[in-house]
This record gives sequence, structure tokens and C-alpha cells, in this order.
Amino acid sequence: MRTPIIFDTDPGVDDAQAIALIMADPDIEVLGMTTTYGNVPVETATSNALLLAELGGHSIPVAQGAARPLSKTPNPFPTFVHGVNGLGDIDLPTPTTRAVDTTAAQFIVDETRKRPGEITLVAVGPLGNLAVALQLDPTLVDRVKQVIVMGGSVKQGGNVTPLAEANIYSDPHAAHRVFTAGWPLVMVGLDVTHKTHIDPERMARIAKGQGKLGEVLADSYSFYADFYRKALGINGCCPHDSCAVAWLKHPELFKTVRGHMSVITDGLAQGQTVFAPESAVFAEDRWSQTPLIDVCMEVDGERVSQWIEDVLTSH
Amino acid sequence: MRTPIIFDTDPGVDDAQAIALIMADPDIEVLGMTTTYGNVPVETATSNALLLAELGGHSIPVAQGAARPLSKTPNPFPTFVHGVNGLGDIDLPTPTTRAVDTTAAQFIVDETRKRPGEITLVAVGPLGNLAVALQLDPTLVDRVKQVIVMGGSVKQGGNVTPLAEANIYSDPHAAHRVFTAGWPLVMVGLDVTHKTHIDPERMARIAKGQGKLGEVLADSYSFYADFYRKALGINGCCPHDSCAVAWLKHPELFKTVRGHMSVITDGLAQGQTVFAPESAVFAEDRWSQTPLIDVCMEVDGERVSQWIEDVLTSH
Repeated sequence: MRTPIIFDTDPGVDDAQAIALIMADPDIEVLGMTTTYGNVPVETATSNALLLAELGGHSIPVAQGAARPLSKTPNPFPTFVHGVNGLGDIDLPTPTTRAVDTTAAQFIVDETRKRPGEITLVAVGPLGNLAVALQLDPTLVDRVKQVIVMGGSVKQGGNVTPLAEANIYSDPHAAHRVFTAGWPLVMVGLDVTHKTHIDPERMARIAKGQGKLGEVLADSYSFYADFYRKALGINGCCPHDSCAVAWLKHPELFKTVRGHMSVITDGLAQGQTVFAPESAVFAEDRWSQTPLIDVCMEVDGERVSQWIEDVLTSH
Repeated sequence: MRTPIIFDTDPGVDDAQAIALIMADPDIEVLGMTTTYGNVPVETATSNALLLAELGGHSIPVAQGAARPLSKTPNPFPTFVHGVNGLGDIDLPTPTTRAVDTTAAQFIVDETRKRPGEITLVAVGPLGNLAVALQLDPTLVDRVKQVIVMGGSVKQGGNVTPLAEANIYSDPHAAHRVFTAGWPLVMVGLDVTHKTHIDPERMARIAKGQGKLGEVLADSYSFYADFYRKALGINGCCPHDSCAVAWLKHPELFKTVRGHMSVITDGLAQGQTVFAPESAVFAEDRWSQTPLIDVCMEVDGERVSQWIEDVLTSH
């Protein structure tokens, strides 16, 4: 049986590659994409999701969701990372399709009611849609197969603050709700995504394999790679969101640690993911009271990158 | 010229070894020890400091200081790490000397007035004494040569909470004051102390070299090593406080990064040291407004351990 997923996304250059991946992998059944603000405003995210599906030759329902954080004041959009249009400011056609009439959160609730226990939520943006789905229907926790979150950082430090990863920092209150909901959840954060690189040569091979969609992936990658060169001094990009898809298909390439997760919602550490491994003993037990999740701590980054290339050059 | 220091301490098994080191190294001039609660109540810390000096055959003024944190509710003492008496609950004689009449903070103020610009403060416990010295005399920042703090963690995670190192967690308000005072400060934290081990064989050689003091060091080490075996699964101990002394004498064995430091004083991340490297760019600049300090991020742990052994077996 193909693996049914809902892909929650804010495309975004690395989102675009991950969307290409989920469309290309014949074992993944994409029930829909739900969109959120994050890398771009939500309307742009929706337009990009529709366009990427269309360029990939797929018909995928897109449900628009969160336009801003649940509680905190919104951050500025990271136009210097993804461009104003989210795809490196390359020229893009207008999509010919439109989003469905359901909100993202309701879409998640509805789909999981149709196929209880079967669906994996892959969330690669700020977590507002998942938090609101839990608000609409708390029994959702019993109906999803698993939740894969690209976000957070345990030992790697942050990428937008010294402590916080961008998706979690964008909506720490939503993230805390999602991480502590008590559903089967795996966090794919900077601890592994920063150890996985797509270099320009690999990107060129991927572009050749993806036709019209490949052009968008490659051209937006160039913009994104400029940022990585300046900010991290690396020749290539971290395929953050594709790593979440890689975990779905190849968890054996990752090493996870089970433990308790909390998110700091306010103050200087806002957006930090606080991880207390199940086996660790601390001075007090207040860090060990949230439900257990799995956190990716190590990865075979080379094999993940190779898998991304393999899928995108053979389908 | 010998390097004059004031050693601020809460002995403590690893403090005891560091005290042996500063007494043994002929290039270090110990002007005094100032004591604080931390591993043990402050009265015990004072008694241990006096006793260790006596066993080492040195006459060193000891000034007693902080009995509790500046602001937070005290944590329980870590008797499972250092024992009730701070030295692994081995039998100890009563010291025959007494502490001086000055408080720890005033002692620091006074000594640095006598020798402005010359003295290094080596602080290996909670930072209350240094914070109060800064409260008594803010011009202190211009009179110390440098401040070496054993405490904190940037990428290593905490040892008493998922995020916080014990000294900083014990008095986060004091630590924030000390880290942001604008004096030349280097942080020697878990990022390097957890990469430095003293194994039982090395400890046995050290004990042989230190006579009566060596017996105390070795017997208390056994208790401490039990904790490390159970908690971290390692055969040996991390010589946290000796690493601060190693930095004083051999900074070339460490790699430091310069940047801005803050301490989270409250909440789930209490006691976390938040480090924003000078070269890093973040979403907002609120992490980059405190004075610059140097943070040890890497160490040649084997050479540090060897240096500790060399000093303690040849003097």
C-alpha cells in the first residue's frame, strides 16, 4: 500500500524540492497539501504549492491555512533566504488551479476521519495548522498514523536565533501544542538537516531529471545557495524539508532518541526546543512531564542526499 | 612573574583537584580562596578549602561568601555527586585554621585594589561572590586582569537540566551579571570539560604524587567516579574545575569563540547560557547586545589531562 500523507508547507525553496520528492516517489500518496505563512505570506505559499503541483503534472488538493502565528507578533518574512516570492524571485507563471474551500486545519480533520490510523502528517513549516486542527478536534491525536515535523534543534543551535530554528520560532505556541499533544511524533531538526547537503553538481542532475519543475527547483536553488554561502560558508544547501520526507521513507538512515519535548514560548530563548531524553536524570522532573516523542539526532547525510537525487532523477 | 589569582570555589571533588593544581603549579600565586555554597553548603566549602590548603602544606587566606543564590530558591545540594561533605563522604580531619574576617566579595574588591590590573579571578562555583563584588564596587571590572569561569554550556546541553550547567543553574541571576559585566572573561563550560576525562589509572598516579592530599583526592574521586559511571556511562571523571586552571596556563589547548552571552534567569530554560557568536547574524539583534566574552568550544582533552597529571606528579 502506498503511504498516504498530508504535506503541511510554506514553499519556500527547500519546500519546493520536498514537494517534488513526494510527487515523484511512487510509494507516497499525497492526499493534499495544507499551506501556512512562514517562508512567505500564506497566499504566496498557496500559489506556490498549486504551481509546483501543476508543473509536476499532479492534481493535488491545496487547502490554505494560517496567515500568522497563534499568539506572538509575526516575524518579518525571510526574503533574503527564499526571495519575496519564496522561490528565489525567479519568474513564475500563475497557477491555473485554485485552493479548495476548506481551511487547512479542517482539511486535516476531515481527511483523517475518512482514513483513521492511516495518514501521516508531514509538517515542514510553522505549526499553526496542526495546532488548530488539534483545537478543532482533539481526538485527531488518535487518528493520525504519525506526525513528522521538520523543525527545532537540540544540540545544533538555532538558525534564526542562537537557540531557535525558524519554523518553531515562527510560532512557538503552536509548536509547543503540537510537540506535547501525545501523538506519535518524530522531530527532524537542524541536528540532522545541517548535516545533509545538496551540492551544485547534485542539484544540476536533479534539475535535468525533473523537466519544467526541475528548472524552478534549480533556479530557486541558486538564490538559496547564495544565502548558504554567505551565512554558513558552505557550497550547497541543506535540504531541510526533504529530510522530513527521507525520514518517512528511510528512517534507518537516521538515529533517533526518545524523550520529552517542550518549547520555550517567550523571552530570550523563545522558540527553543527543550529536549529531555527519556534515559536522562535531571535535578528536577519538570522537564520530563510532557509526552514522549522521537528526535532525530544523527543522520547519514550523504545517503539521504543520494536518495533525494535517486528519486528525483528516476521518476 | 608568577600569575596572581583568587580562586572562587565550592569544594567539591573536582574543586579539590583544581585546588591541588593551583597550589602545585609554581607559576601560580594563590592570593586567596573565596568560598560559596554550590556543591555543598558554604560552611562546608570553607572548611574543605582550609583543609585542602593545609593538607597541601600551603597557607592561603580563605574568605567565606555566598550561602545561597541572589534571587532564586536554592536547589538541593548534589550529595549524590560530591557526597554530603563535598569530598565523597570520606573521613576528613578538622582544619586547624580559620577563614579570614572579610567576606568573599570584599576580599576580591580589596585584593584587586592592592594590585590593579594584575589579578585573575578563577571562578569554579555559582557566581554569587563575583556578582556581589561587582555590586560593592562596579569599577572592579577595570581592575581584574581577566575572569575565568567554569560553567555554562553552548552545544553540549546541560548536566542538571536539559539546558543548564550546575554552576549557572545554581544562581542564574549572578551568572547573568558576571557574564555581562564587560570585563575580559572566558567561559570554560561543558563544551570542553565533557571532552576531558581523568581515568582511574591517571588518578592513581596523581594520588601517589600528592602525599596526604593525594589520598583525599583519590578517595573522593572514587565516590565521584561512581556517579559518572552511572550517569554518563564513562570510566573516569570530568575534571571541570581543573580545566579552568588549564585554560589559565595553557589556553593554546583550547579553541575559543568570541561572542555575546546572556543567561536565562527564569522559566524552563533557567540557567541556560545563550551564546551569540560575534560573526553570526540572527533574525533580531537582541541576542547581540551584551559585552563580548570568549567561550571555549573545543579542547585537546588528552593534553589537558596529561598536563594536570604532570603538574600533580612533579610538584
